[in-house]
Amino acid sequence: MAHVDDKRVARVLDALEAQHPGAQLLVNDPWSIYYLTGFYADMFERFCGVLLARGAEPVILVNALHQLPEYDNARVAYHTDTDIVADAIAREVDPTKPLGIDTVMRSGFLMPLMERHAASEFFLGDFAVTAARTHKDAAEQELMRASSAANDAVMADAIKLVHEGVTEREIADQMLGLYRKHDCEGFSFPPIVSFGANAGDPHHEPDDTVLKRGDVVLFDIGGRHRNYCSDMTRTFFWGEPDEETARIYDIVRRANEAAEALIAPGVRMCDLDRAARNVIEDAGYGQYFTHRLGHSIGLQDHEPGDVSLVNEQVVEPGMTFSIEPGIYLPGHTGVRIEDLALVNENGVEILNAYPHDPLRLD
Amino acid sequence: MAHVDDKRVARVLDALEAQHPGAQLLVNDPWSIYYLTGFYADMFERFCGVLLARGAEPVILVNALHQLPEYDNARVAYHTDTDIVADAIAREVDPTKPLGIDTVMRSGFLMPLMERHAASEFFLGDFAVTAARTHKDAAEQELMRASSAANDAVMADAIKLVHEGVTEREIADQMLGLYRKHDCEGFSFPPIVSFGANAGDPHHEPDDTVLKRGDVVLFDIGGRHRNYCSDMTRTFFWGEPDEETARIYDIVRRANEAAEALIAPGVRMCDLDRAARNVIEDAGYGQYFTHRLGHSIGLQDHEPGDVSLVNEQVVEPGMTFSIEPGIYLPGHTGVRIEDLALVNENGVEILNAYPHDPLRLD
Repeated sequence: MAHVDDKRVARVLDALEAQHPGAQLLVNDPWSIYYLTGFYADMFERFCGVLLARGAEPVILVNALHQLPEYDNARVAYHTDTDIVADAIAREVDPTKPLGIDTVMRSGFLMPLMERHAASEFFLGDFAVTAARTHKDAAEQELMRASSAANDAVMADAIKLVHEGVTEREIADQMLGLYRKHDCEGFSFPPIVSFGANAGDPHHEPDDTVLKRGDVVLFDIGGRHRNYCSDMTRTFFWGEPDEETARIYDIVRRANEAAEALIAPGVRMCDLDRAARNVIEDAGYGQYFTHRLGHSIGLQDHEPGDVSLVNEQVVEPGMTFSIEPGIYLPGHTGVRIEDLALVNENGVEILNAYPHDPLRLD
Repeated sequence: MAHVDDKRVARVLDALEAQHPGAQLLVNDPWSIYYLTGFYADMFERFCGVLLARGAEPVILVNALHQLPEYDNARVAYHTDTDIVADAIAREVDPTKPLGIDTVMRSGFLMPLMERHAASEFFLGDFAVTAARTHKDAAEQELMRASSAANDAVMADAIKLVHEGVTEREIADQMLGLYRKHDCEGFSFPPIVSFGANAGDPHHEPDDTVLKRGDVVLFDIGGRHRNYCSDMTRTFFWGEPDEETARIYDIVRRANEAAEALIAPGVRMCDLDRAARNVIEDAGYGQYFTHRLGHSIGLQDHEPGDVSLVNEQVVEPGMTFSIEPGIYLPGHTGVRIEDLALVNENGVEILNAYPHDPLRLD
């Protein structure tokens, strides 16, 4: 017998009630559904949603192509490909109350609900699930640790694939096997492997570039272990780096460590970004650090909430996010060093144990 | 200098005008944007849209993280991560006219537009793009042919991976390399490799099942060649199949060929499904053919429009769809044979040349 996680549902409904008293919530994001029910599926054009309301049993609405186990504390309401989805949803929603929906819900599902006046009003309500998912509980923290431990092991294996004449793509194509070997289901995002000047573009995708002496070798990689994501970047050297590359490596490392040293409950996200950015700006490379410092992570590699200059949210225990300063010199070289941080009552636990020391792979 | 495909835009606006005279259309589906502009990106939580209106230059609205080339017949309007997306969209939309939006557009973008009364009314308008994309033009037909030719070559290579003691996952993990070898960017969907009883579940995903004598070996695979998708299923034998497996192979093959022989302009999609289903029902296996006969395909593996009993749409030249009957005996075995069809003026061109004859791989 399956069951919906009552504690998580209660946290979601508390957050909802605080802003929209008396409202219902239709959770549609597949990872939020997994978080509450243990059921995950990419539904594509089909529908799945979990309807939550205070004092009522949760209802899981799902296309019958997906047969769920029985739940001891929720009702499963099936519809089929020939049913009209909006009718199936409207049968369960209370038309006299407001309905929160997810930002990711397709307009193709929302608009017919509006036409039917299926609720007294509609609002974007996924902030309530985001609030819960942002604070990882003990079971989730354990999985985040295990996922990053696997990523450390994959990084150690990955650098063994680097040799004279290899291409970025040849390495990237072997990464899935390494994640499988270390007990991961797959990637949390497609691996980034960048040689030399390609590392100067933070969005570079692995191509047929051949490794040459003096190149940096940047790995930005992550896996999924029992559905929880890892994400780590290290930048290595193939041969002796030129003077500027060695210098920016040292700057980026200090920026990373300055931000990580500061993490503790009560510090604001923007203060973390500021701490790393100050190190890079003071060294004269501010214009080459072209992105935010980090992003929240958990069941998805990028979750709502980021570590940026505009986010004044305060760091709280249970939050997990990346710290990933970089310096990108277009057409020349680039360095990024990224770890995952788990905030605890006293400060922070860095989930990656893989060292920051500069390392030549040749 | 890049340019928007004027002919495709004209076809979209003609289809829109026929149902919503005077309306504007905001195209948000990333593959529809590619179809019109040649620009593709998974935007995730960021926004890209193409605003179309009769007599006006198309406007491409996009997050500035994605820098587009200049277009000679369209305007690019950038917004940034710190802008409010709904404001950026509302600046371009005519508030006195109706606005068609895509089914896949996130509610998180739609609802703020509604609050701003950015248009006189909102409706689901992607039928207009679907109508155009459904009819492949000459350039697209050529790419669909090349994509399926590559898939034939991959299938021929894939069966060489089958040997005593191999697991489904070991084969599936080598498929990406085969698509790369045959000039594909990647998969059109994750490959299905099913041995023996696993083939009795049409949704089976490759796992650690080890091949054993008497098993069927089902490959349902597809690649992306210059963005156009292939999709083919073949079912092979490892050792002598039991009598029932051999029998259902013959039935499924006849069902596939009965439907393919019928394809021509003017025939209805439901008639194709009926023709294949009749063969299977007459043989007494109707209850084991548990899905529709096929689906449209092109820039996406599954595009709107299917070959099913409830679709009375008439087949027209330029349409491309799959024909994939199957018989699934849960816990025992399964067979599916799938080709892609391209409708022409006189009848049909089957895009896969890979034969239907039963084949033992041992």
